[in-house]
Amino acid sequence: MSRVGDTLFFEEGVWLNTWAAAVGTKEGQGPLGAYFDYVARDNRFGKKTWEQAESRMVELACEAALSKTGLELSHIDCALGGDLLNQCISTGFAARSLGLPYFGLYGACSTMAESLILGSVLVAGGFAGRTLCLASSHFCSAERQYRYPLEYGGQRPPTAQWTATACGAAVLQRERTAVRVTAATPGRVYDPGITDSSNMGAAMAQSAYETLRTFFRDSGTGPRDYSLMVTGDLASIGHGVVRELFRRDGVELGESYLDCGMLLYDQSQDVHAGASGCGCSAAVLCGRLLPDLAAGKLKKVLFCGTGAMMSPVSANQGESIPGICHLVCLEGGL
Amino acid sequence: MSRVGDTLFFEEGVWLNTWAAAVGTKEGQGPLGAYFDYVARDNRFGKKTWEQAESRMVELACEAALSKTGLELSHIDCALGGDLLNQCISTGFAARSLGLPYFGLYGACSTMAESLILGSVLVAGGFAGRTLCLASSHFCSAERQYRYPLEYGGQRPPTAQWTATACGAAVLQRERTAVRVTAATPGRVYDPGITDSSNMGAAMAQSAYETLRTFFRDSGTGPRDYSLMVTGDLASIGHGVVRELFRRDGVELGESYLDCGMLLYDQSQDVHAGASGCGCSAAVLCGRLLPDLAAGKLKKVLFCGTGAMMSPVSANQGESIPGICHLVCLEGGL
Repeated sequence: MSRVGDTLFFEEGVWLNTWAAAVGTKEGQGPLGAYFDYVARDNRFGKKTWEQAESRMVELACEAALSKTGLELSHIDCALGGDLLNQCISTGFAARSLGLPYFGLYGACSTMAESLILGSVLVAGGFAGRTLCLASSHFCSAERQYRYPLEYGGQRPPTAQWTATACGAAVLQRERTAVRVTAATPGRVYDPGITDSSNMGAAMAQSAYETLRTFFRDSGTGPRDYSLMVTGDLASIGHGVVRELFRRDGVELGESYLDCGMLLYDQSQDVHAGASGCGCSAAVLCGRLLPDLAAGKLKKVLFCGTGAMMSPVSANQGESIPGICHLVCLEGGL
Repeated sequence: MSRVGDTLFFEEGVWLNTWAAAVGTKEGQGPLGAYFDYVARDNRFGKKTWEQAESRMVELACEAALSKTGLELSHIDCALGGDLLNQCISTGFAARSLGLPYFGLYGACSTMAESLILGSVLVAGGFAGRTLCLASSHFCSAERQYRYPLEYGGQRPPTAQWTATACGAAVLQRERTAVRVTAATPGRVYDPGITDSSNMGAAMAQSAYETLRTFFRDSGTGPRDYSLMVTGDLASIGHGVVRELFRRDGVELGESYLDCGMLLYDQSQDVHAGASGCGCSAAVLCGRLLPDLAAGKLKKVLFCGTGAMMSPVSANQGESIPGICHLVCLEGGL
């Protein structure tokens, strides 16, 4: 392991043992529906409350991931994860049933990338044989917490994003597989001064740009070295802003720059600017990208989790929206 | 570095460069008042809102810590921390002004210990030269978020604890100093089924017992090997429960088992069972314990951060209170 600038390099390799995604009904009906390991028939996941439903979805994603490679919980040394709910209860309560040593994280929608970075550090440093990294969000628990009760039927502006009902879980280990984590750049907080919490993609775009730029500088690489660069949940507006910020530097990101928030739903699903939520990037990674990396269809991927570090209280107090972006470099077909 | 059971051992040493605590007025009037680096004259810390006040307190604790040893922010590779507020905004906004790569954590009141563990892993693994670890809470922002607006003047039951207005910040590094982190046990989530959110000390006591027991087993040591064992914020009731749980195993914790929640205020300050909040253990550690370790007055200390992973929503839904305890083993007078 080594460090250049802000970027950590895992020379000896941190490898992905398994991964899975559990999603809600709307996500199952979207263009990636067939790739997810578990699609809910009912967004309550058999529970009485949305919060308990989200916890159950986290457990289902973990169970699906472990069962794929015959792992048991006793083979995992610790779990790292989080969600969007106040006090991260959906992950906290899932950690109670998992029974593993647990590091609770809060990186807003960047949490999957944050957990992969810290999970990789634990493995690469010899502190854990296997780490379980996860992140989740649920449309219904998020909507009533951040915005309005569902029954209110509030109008959403065109810049608004749809919080994904989704969880992704992945297991990192020291033993070689077809996919590895080669490097990571933990993000700094940037705030371009946007105060409209229905326009979070634009608020997070600068942090995505800064972290990508930092990674390119630290690694001595550029956009052409990657088969895919994917941000977490900037959706159509933030995605355009990142492209434009690089263009001003004379750098063309090209066709290989995508955003998970634009992949999860299609236009007919009425989600406005696209998807958001911790679960969005986590599920796209674990449902689609990691299988493609394992199969060698993708060679080098920059997975850039993006998070808006605000709360309804900070927004009501007139504060602008600080953004963060954590980057993980993945290599597949090995 | 190595691992036995759940416990991480930092053989090559992770050392404390500096530390500081910033606290509110009530904490300044308590028995540890003289030990804190910054005591507010006004709990608003010159800001308009309690949340902004908490962010400012975080900045003040970091500034005080860095200035003690002449460090600048550019000497720090990343910050790890969190607080109790929804979406951890007080730390998130402070991270915006610090401008460092930032890992947001949510371990409820165990956050200081969680940040020291992950900060130590980053340093010991060679991923960071120096890490800034911190945790904060503010009575006024916590009270209105978790319980009632201050103006309501709600009655508090005798089991209730007083959320500390306090922040502790510490810098870890590879270079030798007088105090080191020698080992750490990340906690699992335990839930003894307590549903009274005015009795969180009792809810967290089992997790403290389990993590301490795990550490003693993994390290082959016992209570007599430590000059001090200190839990985060179990206060008088939880502290008694931990003592009793060990007694049932035939283990007497003795005089050297204390709780930060019982140290921060005195009886005359009308705090009922004692102090709580992320800032409680963080400030007692950085204000009192680390200086005593550096001076050699304390030799070996087990710092056990305790957290209740509930939210007002989970409590209102009738869920019980899951607890977690992260343990850090410190050695001083070196």
